[in-house]
Amino acid sequence: MDFLNNYLIYLIPVFGVVGIAVMLIKSAWVTKQDPGDGAMTELSGYIADGAMAFLRAEWKVLSYFVVIAVILLAYSGTTVQTSSWTIAISFIVGAFLSAFAGYLGMRIATKANVRTTQAAKTSLAKALQVSFTGGTVMGLGVAGIAILGLGSLFIILYQVYVVNVHGSVNGVEMQKALDILAGFSLGAESIALFARVGGGIYTKAADVGADLVGKVEAGIPEDDVRNPATIADNVGDNVGDVAGMGADLFGSYVATILATMVLGREIVSHDNFGGIAPILLPMLIAGLGLIFSIVGASFVKIKNETDSVQKALNMGNWISILLTAIAAFFAVRWLMPENMNIRGVDFTKSDVYLAIVVGLVVGTLMSIITEYYTAMGKRPVLGIVRQSSTGHATNIIAGLAVGMESTVLPILVLAAGIYGSFHFAGLYGVAIAAAGMMATTAMQLAIDAFGPIADNAGGIAEMSGLPPEVRERTDNLDAVGNTTAATGKGFAIASAALTSLALFAAFVGVAGIDHIDIYKADVLAGLFVGGMIPFIFSALAISAVGRAAMAMVEEVRRQFHEIPGIMEYKAKPEYEKCVAISTKASLREMMAPGLIALITPIIIGFIFGPEVLGGMLAGVTVSGVLMGIFQSNAGGAWDNAKKSFEKGVEINGEMYYKKSEPHKASVTGDTVGDPFKDTSGPSMNILIKLMSIVSLVIAPHLNKTHTIPVSTTQNPIKREIKAPLAANILYKLEKHQ
Amino acid sequence: MDFLNNYLIYLIPVFGVVGIAVMLIKSAWVTKQDPGDGAMTELSGYIADGAMAFLRAEWKVLSYFVVIAVILLAYSGTTVQTSSWTIAISFIVGAFLSAFAGYLGMRIATKANVRTTQAAKTSLAKALQVSFTGGTVMGLGVAGIAILGLGSLFIILYQVYVVNVHGSVNGVEMQKALDILAGFSLGAESIALFARVGGGIYTKAADVGADLVGKVEAGIPEDDVRNPATIADNVGDNVGDVAGMGADLFGSYVATILATMVLGREIVSHDNFGGIAPILLPMLIAGLGLIFSIVGASFVKIKNETDSVQKALNMGNWISILLTAIAAFFAVRWLMPENMNIRGVDFTKSDVYLAIVVGLVVGTLMSIITEYYTAMGKRPVLGIVRQSSTGHATNIIAGLAVGMESTVLPILVLAAGIYGSFHFAGLYGVAIAAAGMMATTAMQLAIDAFGPIADNAGGIAEMSGLPPEVRERTDNLDAVGNTTAATGKGFAIASAALTSLALFAAFVGVAGIDHIDIYKADVLAGLFVGGMIPFIFSALAISAVGRAAMAMVEEVRRQFHEIPGIMEYKAKPEYEKCVAISTKASLREMMAPGLIALITPIIIGFIFGPEVLGGMLAGVTVSGVLMGIFQSNAGGAWDNAKKSFEKGVEINGEMYYKKSEPHKASVTGDTVGDPFKDTSGPSMNILIKLMSIVSLVIAPHLNKTHTIPVSTTQNPIKREIKAPLAANILYKLEKHQ
Repeated sequence: MDFLNNYLIYLIPVFGVVGIAVMLIKSAWVTKQDPGDGAMTELSGYIADGAMAFLRAEWKVLSYFVVIAVILLAYSGTTVQTSSWTIAISFIVGAFLSAFAGYLGMRIATKANVRTTQAAKTSLAKALQVSFTGGTVMGLGVAGIAILGLGSLFIILYQVYVVNVHGSVNGVEMQKALDILAGFSLGAESIALFARVGGGIYTKAADVGADLVGKVEAGIPEDDVRNPATIADNVGDNVGDVAGMGADLFGSYVATILATMVLGREIVSHDNFGGIAPILLPMLIAGLGLIFSIVGASFVKIKNETDSVQKALNMGNWISILLTAIAAFFAVRWLMPENMNIRGVDFTKSDVYLAIVVGLVVGTLMSIITEYYTAMGKRPVLGIVRQSSTGHATNIIAGLAVGMESTVLPILVLAAGIYGSFHFAGLYGVAIAAAGMMATTAMQLAIDAFGPIADNAGGIAEMSGLPPEVRERTDNLDAVGNTTAATGKGFAIASAALTSLALFAAFVGVAGIDHIDIYKADVLAGLFVGGMIPFIFSALAISAVGRAAMAMVEEVRRQFHEIPGIMEYKAKPEYEKCVAISTKASLREMMAPGLIALITPIIIGFIFGPEVLGGMLAGVTVSGVLMGIFQSNAGGAWDNAKKSFEKGVEINGEMYYKKSEPHKASVTGDTVGDPFKDTSGPSMNILIKLMSIVSLVIAPHLNKTHTIPVSTTQNPIKREIKAPLAANILYKLEKHQ
Repeated sequence: MDFLNNYLIYLIPVFGVVGIAVMLIKSAWVTKQDPGDGAMTELSGYIADGAMAFLRAEWKVLSYFVVIAVILLAYSGTTVQTSSWTIAISFIVGAFLSAFAGYLGMRIATKANVRTTQAAKTSLAKALQVSFTGGTVMGLGVAGIAILGLGSLFIILYQVYVVNVHGSVNGVEMQKALDILAGFSLGAESIALFARVGGGIYTKAADVGADLVGKVEAGIPEDDVRNPATIADNVGDNVGDVAGMGADLFGSYVATILATMVLGREIVSHDNFGGIAPILLPMLIAGLGLIFSIVGASFVKIKNETDSVQKALNMGNWISILLTAIAAFFAVRWLMPENMNIRGVDFTKSDVYLAIVVGLVVGTLMSIITEYYTAMGKRPVLGIVRQSSTGHATNIIAGLAVGMESTVLPILVLAAGIYGSFHFAGLYGVAIAAAGMMATTAMQLAIDAFGPIADNAGGIAEMSGLPPEVRERTDNLDAVGNTTAATGKGFAIASAALTSLALFAAFVGVAGIDHIDIYKADVLAGLFVGGMIPFIFSALAISAVGRAAMAMVEEVRRQFHEIPGIMEYKAKPEYEKCVAISTKASLREMMAPGLIALITPIIIGFIFGPEVLGGMLAGVTVSGVLMGIFQSNAGGAWDNAKKSFEKGVEINGEMYYKKSEPHKASVTGDTVGDPFKDTSGPSMNILIKLMSIVSLVIAPHLNKTHTIPVSTTQNPIKREIKAPLAANILYKLEKHQ
């Protein structure tokens, strides 16, 4: 075992430790900022309490899920593979860290919001500093925990399974270690699904519920402290946009690194790191990306009131991406051998680097395209604005058409990215492209999380009746936040797509099949079933928002009736109950879509075998990416079409403002778009990744059952079709007698 | 050459002749029915003139398209394959017959409508007889022309290419004959695409345009003869629901038979028909289905006013399906040898029959499921009705959720159908299942076309001020027509899906590849691009309706201004101009989606090779079926949710009727659903079939370029990826120097 090799393995968790250390420093800095006067701290206290109430309820429900999942994972071990209990433990660690990352992000966001409001009293520069530092804390936390967790677990597994057993690197044992890491990723991604879908249902249910009873029935303004659901509404922003996005990217980040490691194992690599350089590379690049995200974040600052916040954010983003790209060049040169081969594709170390560049370009293009389709003043949103003048229906038709149209360029970019990265370095190229794209996740998340913090800050400023220049400054930040939210979604979809493909490739390798032939009828049937899943998943998520909103409406009505004095500010509404009701409803409603994602691959895989499962995964990925882009962009475009009316728009020579008929039509579109862009649309990312990870985890089991000898027949294709079903049932019956 | 063989070949066009003869008799019967008084004949005359105006304008535009397509087809022959000019001729014949079938259907529908109104003065039984006979004329015409055309062309090609050249059956020459038949199918399906999309845009543009100016601006009632667009609106119903559906099913019918023939050629068959029994079987079953459709149609009658029209239609439908199933059993027994093999799958003649039964079951289940999701009084529509009470947005959300949810069962049925029919008889099983399902197309189309005839009849009764019992009778027929329209769409989607798969399989065989491996990066990229196409196609179709409606609005406004006396019934509006404007706009707007469908396979196929094209086709098919079901069912459910308010609905204990707030919200949903269910949704059927046929036609060319030897390298997969692109470009450059 080479010295450098051991050194590098231990270096990786150090990157995570550095990230966490910087996070703690920045977190302490945010905490010691002035939170403002009594009214402001009281408001932010309610939001923070509400966020904690959500987390407690969520953890309780998820703990049942984790217990059941762990029992199933451990049980599967007794029948098929003895090391499955380690996968179960790995699953728990992944689930815990994912939940912890969400907790961390929400904690800092609920502190940074009110401090941003206070800072906005002084200057825009100071407000940006506080809100963006809050975002940075979340970004560094998520990436730091992921790298520390993954890196440490890899060291332990490497020592236990690879080094101690054989004293040298062994392919089979390394695969066992990676199988266990897949359990870690499964735990992280499962929690991410619940966080994203539950959070998405939560935030929209609270939003609609608060509006329907507060604004419409009781006649009190939006964000009024007397409305029991108003805190739930504000908590919802944090739950959906902060914790949901954080858990999503945490899951993507871990899954991408893992998939690249699994594929890296297949490379016969004559390097100076005991042959595991291709396995270490994705972790190293992630570590470098984390460090350069810290560097890039330090460039996000402005001096004067008129400086562009967007430019400052772009500057930081570009610096972190460019530095990571340069560092990756040297990392590839240092680690990788000159020539490699994966599944028959030869490639050089330069090819690996070019694949990373492809990933960075794809991510950037996806963000730009998403911005175009959802930004105010561009053709798509202007079209929706214009069609709002002829009523609700034409507004809806226009938005749906924009959403559908917006799939074209992203799909072409993605297809070119897949083609290009594979061209350079085979399937390892596709995976490392995704890893390159995800390297600066810390920075991406900082930019994403900054938006809802600024949004909350504006709400607190409004509710506390602060002077207009404060609100102006937070509005400035909020507007930038809207743009970064849209581009963040484009980035998340692109990363999810590439990650899924990497996982897909990893699955194929682990399952021991060397092709997925859609020309076979059963594989094609799997493709159809897979393509349908994002549709039923979206249908469930969308209708869940409707049902959960009704539950919220009933609770608010109850409080108004049963607690006297709320309207006269004499009694404090039971915010926690609203939060708990919304949480319960959202977690209950998201069970069905979540279980579909988890159970379908297991059913298909065990009954029809790995090739049909592969066909199903391809269907889910293609359909999920399309539905994700369609719904997210349609929702974003409707939202900004509505926002356009706030400033006033010209349609056929006439000016229209808020409360005009076209504005009312645009509000309908925005309401339809809410569950699209904040519930079902972004859930597609996790859906496709989670189903791939489940398949990857069960792949070794499928492999074994698939190779059971069946009675020979003169009909080769028929046997192949019928074998898995018959063999699996027979196998299961024998085992359980 | 066996006597029975020659006999059977010549028998097939005879089935077509019988169908056409019966059609002529029934057509003459309809024509000699009493068309009613002067006001009624004037109205129906306007509609008939409008329909002809549409056809003339359509033919003019399409003739350019046919000329360009023929030049391209003939040109491709000079470089690659010398027999391409015959494909071009075959294309013209297919295009002409498809257009002629549409003409025929529209002619009889515009005659039967007013005669149904007149018959409804007497009794429901008589009205049903006239309207259903009108539908039967269309059904028999479409199926008869298809069988006569396909059967005669096959005889000619068989004599020219197979018998005369070698004196015995030769696989290569037979393939050449089938390639030319593929040109026939391409011509038919191209015209079908234009008819369906153009018709879909036309009918919705006229509908919206007539309503916006007539009802909203001028304050005259719906279907008022003073509205220049009202005839266009009524023509639109015929153009969309009669001609569009007819062209669609004509294309499906021809494509299904063709695909089964192409796959049948691959079977080494030791039969009594010179080895071509598997090629003849689909044509024979189609012929039998046509005959038993005639028999079934004679059972569609009622005696008393209270008899169920739905039951009568179901009776006729079931009789034709059952008789065809029984006859198919004997046909299979007579024609097919005991044992066959296609691409490694062994199967018996019983397996072939079981595959046909699978197709019949799939078609039936799809119709039942579609009815459930779109019928009044069932859970999905009731849910939309309930959610209309909280506004426009919740109505839209509910409808979108219903549409997405409605994909689940059809996809499971389809997947099981693919799995089952393949299980019985390999890819030939999938194709013959589709052929079995399509066998009773004549009956299906009769039931479908009867709906719009009854609808038109009701409109004429209303406009002519006939007594209420006449309107009651036509309303009774119309209500049944709504149900059959929905089930017809389910049937059309299922048949399109199975047909596409059969064409897909045929393409793979003709292209000379034996797998489509989505595990390869470029094939997966193709899958993504294919999946995106139904989204951009739908986006273009939906926005086209909006733009075309605006053009109509401007023309109606112009006529109101420039022609004095319209409002006082002193001047006749220029109906033809409205019809022409709407036609022009719709044909212009549908060019872009049509060209995407035609050109994409050519680009992908020639640049990236047949395997990537196969991946793209799979993506188009899966995504197209999903988007088709989603949009058609969402639109149908919204429509019936709105219709539910006409009778009055109870929501939370309160009754709501027309003009209530929930009803207004349901109207918004219906308007959004209009382009969904009548423009983009049903176009998906033709989109997926047409792209498959284009691929099938270019497949022999791809095959040749694909097998050009390229410089050998040590990197097998890289070569495979790079080869088609480089080889094609080099090949083209060489050829054109």
